[in-house]
This record gives sequence, structure tokens and C-alpha cells, in this order.
Amino acid sequence: MNTFVVIGGDAAGMSAASKAKRDDPDLDVIVFEQGKWVSYGACGLPYYIKGEIQSLENLVSVTPEEFREERDIDLRTGHKVIDIDPDERVVTARSADGETVQDYDSVLIATGAEAVTPSIDGLDREGVYTLGSMSDGKELREYVGRARSEGELQQPDRGPACQFLETCNGPVGIVGGGYIGVEMAEALAANDFEVYLFQRGNHILKTFSEATSETVVEHLREQGVAVYLNAQVEVLDGEDAVEAVVTTDDCVPVEMVLVGTGVRPRTGLAEAAGITLGETGAIATDSYRETNLADVYAAGDCAEAEHVVTGEPAYVPLALTANRHGRAVGQTIAGTPTEGGGVAGTAAVKAFDIEAARTGIIDHDEAQKAGFDPITETIDANSRAGYYPEGGTVRVTLTADRDSGRVLGGSLVSEYGEGAVHRSHALVAAVTEGVTVDEFSDYDLAYAPPFNTTWDPVLTAAKVLGGRLN
Amino acid sequence: MNTFVVIGGDAAGMSAASKAKRDDPDLDVIVFEQGKWVSYGACGLPYYIKGEIQSLENLVSVTPEEFREERDIDLRTGHKVIDIDPDERVVTARSADGETVQDYDSVLIATGAEAVTPSIDGLDREGVYTLGSMSDGKELREYVGRARSEGELQQPDRGPACQFLETCNGPVGIVGGGYIGVEMAEALAANDFEVYLFQRGNHILKTFSEATSETVVEHLREQGVAVYLNAQVEVLDGEDAVEAVVTTDDCVPVEMVLVGTGVRPRTGLAEAAGITLGETGAIATDSYRETNLADVYAAGDCAEAEHVVTGEPAYVPLALTANRHGRAVGQTIAGTPTEGGGVAGTAAVKAFDIEAARTGIIDHDEAQKAGFDPITETIDANSRAGYYPEGGTVRVTLTADRDSGRVLGGSLVSEYGEGAVHRSHALVAAVTEGVTVDEFSDYDLAYAPPFNTTWDPVLTAAKVLGGRLN
Repeated sequence: MNTFVVIGGDAAGMSAASKAKRDDPDLDVIVFEQGKWVSYGACGLPYYIKGEIQSLENLVSVTPEEFREERDIDLRTGHKVIDIDPDERVVTARSADGETVQDYDSVLIATGAEAVTPSIDGLDREGVYTLGSMSDGKELREYVGRARSEGELQQPDRGPACQFLETCNGPVGIVGGGYIGVEMAEALAANDFEVYLFQRGNHILKTFSEATSETVVEHLREQGVAVYLNAQVEVLDGEDAVEAVVTTDDCVPVEMVLVGTGVRPRTGLAEAAGITLGETGAIATDSYRETNLADVYAAGDCAEAEHVVTGEPAYVPLALTANRHGRAVGQTIAGTPTEGGGVAGTAAVKAFDIEAARTGIIDHDEAQKAGFDPITETIDANSRAGYYPEGGTVRVTLTADRDSGRVLGGSLVSEYGEGAVHRSHALVAAVTEGVTVDEFSDYDLAYAPPFNTTWDPVLTAAKVLGGRLN
Repeated sequence: MNTFVVIGGDAAGMSAASKAKRDDPDLDVIVFEQGKWVSYGACGLPYYIKGEIQSLENLVSVTPEEFREERDIDLRTGHKVIDIDPDERVVTARSADGETVQDYDSVLIATGAEAVTPSIDGLDREGVYTLGSMSDGKELREYVGRARSEGELQQPDRGPACQFLETCNGPVGIVGGGYIGVEMAEALAANDFEVYLFQRGNHILKTFSEATSETVVEHLREQGVAVYLNAQVEVLDGEDAVEAVVTTDDCVPVEMVLVGTGVRPRTGLAEAAGITLGETGAIATDSYRETNLADVYAAGDCAEAEHVVTGEPAYVPLALTANRHGRAVGQTIAGTPTEGGGVAGTAAVKAFDIEAARTGIIDHDEAQKAGFDPITETIDANSRAGYYPEGGTVRVTLTADRDSGRVLGGSLVSEYGEGAVHRSHALVAAVTEGVTVDEFSDYDLAYAPPFNTTWDPVLTAAKVLGGRLN
């Protein structure tokens, strides 16, 4: 019997294991997961901490028991793989019961990503959190629960940011204005914390367009979040526990800090086995996710993927890619070689009452490095027919190559429910298929007054940008 | 000076006039419109009748005065063109002041569509309405207003369909379950009418998938609309005014009937001028919308357009195509030949608390006629992450060609606000670009828990259909 070993039991790993076993029931599929959770929706953690999801278990799409019993996968939680030996074709795993040596015919490295540790003093103080794992989520929820019950007793008056709130907790600091930072600002503010968000540069959600970023900042401020741009955090100061966020310019008293300054691929195991990393620092693979070692694959947040616009390797650690590439590897292992496609760098985020999405290449430096001559246009358009009783504004940023007219990327933001995210689907397709702005503006998109103007905002953006190109 | 004559002042006509004049200010642009309204959003009429839009003027995007004064277009309302003479290159228009003969260098026929007259007796009775024009909309709104004030006085008890309503008007009949029929069911029910909807076949919204259609029928019934399927309406009976809808099986007492059994292209003027019609009965054009007569163009609801899937001429009279093709003709006339793209047959509709969209080719007969071997799959998927506190279900129907795997078309339905319509944008792109279901399922669409599951429902549909093809 053929043996497929999977290292890491989250999105990529469990997608691969499930697909391989389903397509080839004779395959022996063994998954080593160092923790106790598998196949969990880490993207849901901010909503759990916010209090909208009652239990961590709710985030688990398939339980360990289901994988074992219904899907017949040999899932070994509490097993950390410490070595891959490609010559002997074995992996060694360590658990509370000692070491296991397991031979393999093929192996998938799906070790995911880990939080970047920024160069800030005081990261080890009590009250400093990160949000990368289920147990991080549990701790943050417990913190919120404790502070909430105290806050409800004390009802302190903590200054201007609290003016909208009946009770006020905090103050708390968030270092980093990425997805986690923005989503956690919402989660903490919803629990009546006074929230201070620190962003190193002047551009939160930095892969989104400047126009989107500015819109989100404005909205966060309207919601009472104190956003500090160009804020270089140097120290998380305090006696034992954290008491202040110290930047080059300010010192803001806080009772808790969440550090969300991005992630990096977890590649130590792969490097030790002689696996090549790419320029991005993540594991390099071919289009089938195979590494430089035969029969050793890598997928998900530890690996690169080719960008649909540039064709070059990129590191975009997000859930859909992990699922898709994991599934493709499973299908390949089961006998049907499957590529699983590239990445467009698509992402979506909700921030209080607005939503935003981005895809492709928007940044001009990045576009120029890839050989394009970028041009960008941002438009505001009604989200529904102007005469329709409901509706808001969709702000669309579109970037194209001046020479070819090719759509390179875009970014959208709207009120929550006005469709910035779902409307981005059309842009993903345009970016993936390499169409020009003129071709894109000819797309026969759905129209009815409750959903858009006759020209959907994305088409209007293409029309306006097209006008600047012609 | 060059003279561009436009016949018809709605979407296609005014888009062409505006674009041509904007791109070439030296052009003499003359528009003949037989009515008094131009550039109006007929798609908004159901919402005006419903009472959500207060004035007909709100539906007008640009007023006649703005066209004349700001855009410098010679707009002549109240002028009906009665003849095009391609040899003399003149058109003749009739108005209250007599006849005008106008020479042209190029002319656009944008005469739109008119309501189909079904073979039903009694269409001329009082209380029988259609909804094709602004004045139709005005009459219907007045009817609703009158009935409403009576109903509020009388508060009659009109049987089971009224059980949810505090007051009840009607009963009223709607003949035809297309967009107009469905949107007007909502508009009339919102005004407390007891609504009876009659559909000839068993499939309302007949270009949508059966699964979508069934979902909409079920929802209409939940909302208290009595839907009669396979109902062949023979007579609208009554003394002077209409009093009953008589089908082969039933006789339903009504006080008003709206007939919405589709539209046909208004082609009399073109035919008389020797212009060729296509097999669909609409005006045949090339990809630049030029007819068989040199410098005579046709666009919008009176003309054909090439279907992006089949490449063959199709008749899909909808607003976006009219706008897009009108604009393309304007650009061509102004010196930049522009095709304006084909049609995918995309459409969207809101029905009470659900929304639906469709695109491409779904019907198997139609697919087979175009040389495909169609296969269809329908799936239900969560509209947001399963653990997210809000959300509903998106039902996606996807049709592909068995041999090539090419996505031919799709249909989606969800609760209103759960994104069936905006999610269809991705499908329009897939259909337009001719991608396979496997390629489509690899699209890197935006994901975050408040907006979808990791695989957006359209990707899940592609994955499932792909599994049946491989």
C-alpha cells in the first residue's frame, strides 16, 4: 500500500488528506499535527473574540473524530514532526509517548505560518497577545470576558474615544493595521474597549489601494478607534504587565496590547531537510506544489505560489489558496496530476460597517518590477440605482498597464452589504484572464436597480480608466 | 459639418448621442424622440409603482434640458420618425408642427422594444395594463394610489392570501412570470393587493435555471402570491372593466390585470427602409452595430447582438447592452471604431426577500443547438462562513459542456443581501472568457467569513460539476 504523509493538520494538510483518501481509498494517509486542533477556521477567531461565535468548537469544520472515523485518515494530533529524511523516505515525529519513524511514498509539508516578531521591546510582558492559533484566540476571549465584567462594574470615563459608549473598557493597543488588526479593532470596540491602533507607515491594509486604506482609516476613526499612522512602536512599557505603547512620538497608556504585524512561513523543518526556499522566504514549488525533492510537496501558508499576473512566485498566505492547493496535491497523490492554479493576491476584510476587497497588482513599484507601466484610477459610484431607496457608495481603484491596457489589479470599498467584496469577483476573473480594461468594460454583468447602476461600479471604473488609456 | 441622427431617446440613443458629441464636439447630433421622456430608467418603474420612489422624474438620469444645454445635443421630443431614405440619406420626422426632413451622414436606429400582445381575449378592457413606458408606469401608480385609499377605508377580508395583511386590496392578476411580472408582484403585494400570477409554462423567469425558478415560486407563495403554473390565460372577462382571469382550468376574480408577456423589437421603421432583420426578428448588425445599409446603425432593444458563448446573433433586450452598444456607436461615429462587445444574456431580479441572477446558456436544448453537450449541476452552499452569525443559502446552478469542460452558463438565487447577483459577476467573466469549470474553480476569489465560505458558492459549484466531468 502507498503511504501519503501529511505534516500539519489545518487547511492545506486536511484538504490534501481528505481528497487523496477520497479519490484513492487504498491509500494509507497519515497526518501529523503538533497541536490538538485540526481543520479550524482561524479567520473566524476575531468574531469568536468579539462574542458573535459562542464556542471555539464552532470554528472547526471537521473534527478529529470525523477525519478518523468517517474519512479513514490516520490523524495523529500531539505529534510534532522533527525530521524529514528524503533519502530514507521517512519522517520522524515526536509526541508525549516518544518518537515515531514513519516511512512515506509521498509527503506534504503544510506547516503553515507563524507570527512575525517585530523589533519592539517588551513583547514578553503580561497583557501582550498575538492571534495566530486557537489557543491565542481562547486567551484573548478570556481577557475580553474578564475586562468586560470588570468594566460593567466600574463604568469608568476614559476620555473622548469613549464618548459614544455606555461603558468603556481598556484602553487597549493594537500594533499593526493588517486584517487581524482591523478585525480585532472591531471585535474589541464591540466589547466597549477604547482602541488605539498603531500603523508603522501611513497605509493600513497595505496591500489594498491607498484610496481603500484611507476610507477604512476614516471609518475606524468615526467608530471611535484612535488610529496612529506613521507610528513606529518602540517599547511596550510597564512594570510587570504592559502599561503603555511607546512610539517615537507618543506614549499611550494601555492595559493590553495585541501585536499583529504579519506572518512568515514556518520553514525550519523543510530547510533542515534540504528543501529550497524561494526569494520570498517561503518554500519554492513547481506548479504541482512539488519541492526540489521528489515526492515532497509543500502547500498553504508555508509555501510560494505563482502569481497570475506576473507568473512569478509569490507569498500570499491565505485560506483559499491553502484549501485549493492542498486539495490539488491530494488529487495528484491519488493519481490525477492537478496544478490547482495560481494566486491573484485576493483578500477581503470587514471593518465595522464597511467592507473591502483587493486583487492583483495595485502597487506601482511592484507593477514596474514586473515590467508593467502602471496607471491607476479611483472612482466613486452608487452601489444601486440612484433612485433606489437603499444604497451607498462603492469606491473602486483599478490599475492597468498603460501599454497593453491589461487590468493588473483593483481594490474596492463600500458600506457593509453594498457589495465591494462580491463585486471584486469580476476583477479577479479579469486579472486572471489577462483582459484589457476595454474588454472588461464590455462584460455583460448583471444589472437591476436594487443591485447596481446600469454599469456596475467595476465597469464604470474600467470605462473611466479606459478613457485615460485611449 | 457632419450630421449624426439618432432615432429614439432612451438608453441606446442618448448614450450614442452623448458619447459622439463628447468625443467630437464639431459633430451635429440630432435626436428624434416620439415621446416626451428621454434617458429614463424603465427598470425602476416597479419601484415607483410600489411607492419606494416618489416621482417619475427621479427615474430620469439626464433631463432634456441638460442634453440640450449642457451636452449641446439637438434633442427633439414629440418627433416620430416615419421614414428613413438611405438613398437620399434623409430621415423624415412628424411632430405636432408637421413634417421635418433631416439629412444625415450617419444614423442610429434606437427604437427599442414594445410589449408583445398575447392571444388573449379582453386585452382592451378597462383595468388591463401593461408596463412598457413611463406613462404606463404613471397609470399603474395612479391605480395603486386609488385602490390603496379605498382599501384603507374598506379593509375587506378577501380570503387566505390576505391572512398576512392588515388591509387588503385587489384581487389583481399578473399574466406572465418574467422580470416585470415578478417585480410587479412585489410592488402590488407591498400595497396590500391580493396578487394572482399566471405563468403559461411551469417555469417562471424562464431564462433562469429550473432550480432558481422553483426557489422563486416557493418564495412568492410564502409571501402570499397565488402562483398558477401551466396556466393558459384565454380571456380577461368582465362587463366593461376586467372582472376575472379565465384560464383553461380556472376562473379567478380580479379587479385589475397587468399583462407582462415579454417584448419584441420595434422594427417597422427599419424594415420599411430595407434593413435586414435577423432570425430573432430583431435588426441584424455587424459587431459595430452597423446594419446592411452603410452608415445606418441599430442598437439597444430593437437590435441583435452576438452571444459571447455561441458567437451567434441573439436578442436580449436589456439596459446595459443598450447603454454599452449605444456608447460604442457614438464612439465609432466620432472616429474611433468600437465594437462594444457581445451579450451573455445576463439578468438579475429581486423578488420580495430574495435575489436571483443568470448568465450564459443554461437550457440544454439551446446548448445542444449551439453544438454543446451540456451537463448541469445545482448546489446549495452557505452564503457566509457556517459559524458566522449572519447568513443564508446561495443556490447555484452551473451548466458546462461535457467534452471541453467549458462553463456555458449559470443561475444563482439567495436571500436578498446574500449576494446571488454580485456573485454572478464571476460567472459572467467565466462564460465570456470561455474558461473550463476546472479553471474556474481555481479562481482566487475574495474570502472572509462575513462574505462567504472559503470556497465561494460559485467555486463550490464548479468543483462539484468538475467532479462529474472528470
